[in-house]
Amino acid sequence: MIAGHPFSQVQFTGERFPLSQVKLLAPMLPSKVVAIGRNYAEHAAELGNEVPEEPLIFIKPSTTVIGHGENIAYPTSVSDRVDYEGELAVVIGRLCREVPVERVKDVIFGYTCANDVTARDLQKKDVQFTRAKGFDTFCPLGPWIQTDLDASDLALTTTVNGEIRQSGRTSQLINDIPALVAYVSAVMTLIPGDVILTGTPAGVGPLEIGDEVSIGIEGIGTLTNKVVSRD
Amino acid sequence: MIAGHPFSQVQFTGERFPLSQVKLLAPMLPSKVVAIGRNYAEHAAELGNEVPEEPLIFIKPSTTVIGHGENIAYPTSVSDRVDYEGELAVVIGRLCREVPVERVKDVIFGYTCANDVTARDLQKKDVQFTRAKGFDTFCPLGPWIQTDLDASDLALTTTVNGEIRQSGRTSQLINDIPALVAYVSAVMTLIPGDVILTGTPAGVGPLEIGDEVSIGIEGIGTLTNKVVSRD
Repeated sequence: MIAGHPFSQVQFTGERFPLSQVKLLAPMLPSKVVAIGRNYAEHAAELGNEVPEEPLIFIKPSTTVIGHGENIAYPTSVSDRVDYEGELAVVIGRLCREVPVERVKDVIFGYTCANDVTARDLQKKDVQFTRAKGFDTFCPLGPWIQTDLDASDLALTTTVNGEIRQSGRTSQLINDIPALVAYVSAVMTLIPGDVILTGTPAGVGPLEIGDEVSIGIEGIGTLTNKVVSRD
Repeated sequence: MIAGHPFSQVQFTGERFPLSQVKLLAPMLPSKVVAIGRNYAEHAAELGNEVPEEPLIFIKPSTTVIGHGENIAYPTSVSDRVDYEGELAVVIGRLCREVPVERVKDVIFGYTCANDVTARDLQKKDVQFTRAKGFDTFCPLGPWIQTDLDASDLALTTTVNGEIRQSGRTSQLINDIPALVAYVSAVMTLIPGDVILTGTPAGVGPLEIGDEVSIGIEGIGTLTNKVVSRD
């Protein structure tokens, strides 16, 4: 266990607990989650979209964030198509704006797994992504933050009930991590704990009530959540 | 002066200062600003848009918020068309979700003036509104929160350098305040201090460096900000 929050000097309390006996909360409480659309070419193509000229950004509110083992609540009264989207999440460690590409490494605290859960039917209907991607519980993050990692070429795998559905590598990102952090921070100041989702590879598809969805990233770990009905 | 934050029991300290000798900060630090697009028919028409079937929602990050008297920073390196949008802002006072229309009054703390500053050229280019409406300083809020007010039919006036540019009434909202709070809270949990912008009336137009823009709402007050170059 550590005392305090992880974005400044931490102290280890000396207490140790087996993983089976603790509940892992989301490893940060972000002021904002900035997500990137269509950042893997095959994924853009599978939904019939062009790759945008510049990164396509949208925001998931902090109220979407849940941790490993918490439930994704399916808003059955308004949607009948809710998709998983496995993604590498970048966790910001320093207050920063207009970060040049070559200094991005200095503002990154670490990396975690993310699921950019999306009500696909509402996304198509609304055009703006905010509602479709903004429901409570629609941003599982975790299981923890890996701080010592070269994230430029990691395998990412999404499974549903143990079956592989997405399999990509972060080396396939159209806009890489330095480019994304530079781009987003040129628009909005980033705050320690803020999260940038880097986009999802091909293979997105629907979740059903009762499904267990896992996002595993090489060198980080596996984020697992069950789907329950919200209503 | 009051001690503590305004969303719980407040205490008056007894100290009084003339308005000319204080700087008014934004009257809340929201976890999110949820904004509504195309909620006045004449404004939807002036930009060539249909009125959406359901409220069109998007998010401005907390880093957009500034108070009365602070400067709007024009991102001249990426935009040459930045517009004012005068709006009534609803300030949430209670943690809430799925609020029925008839109980919305119980979760509203009060009202303030807002300017949903928008890089119109980037809004058209990006389709998603996040970047165009998400630059630092693009959400002036203030000058204070009016807690005792019937907001259903208030005059709203936007002036630039003293000339009237927008003149509307909140009675013209397509989705009224109870409908908006119910709709947004059915998607995402709202937190005390969160803000819902209710949309802008007709008359939107450009700001230039050096302009002074004011949003005045009957029964609340006037929010004034100057435009400076960010770069």
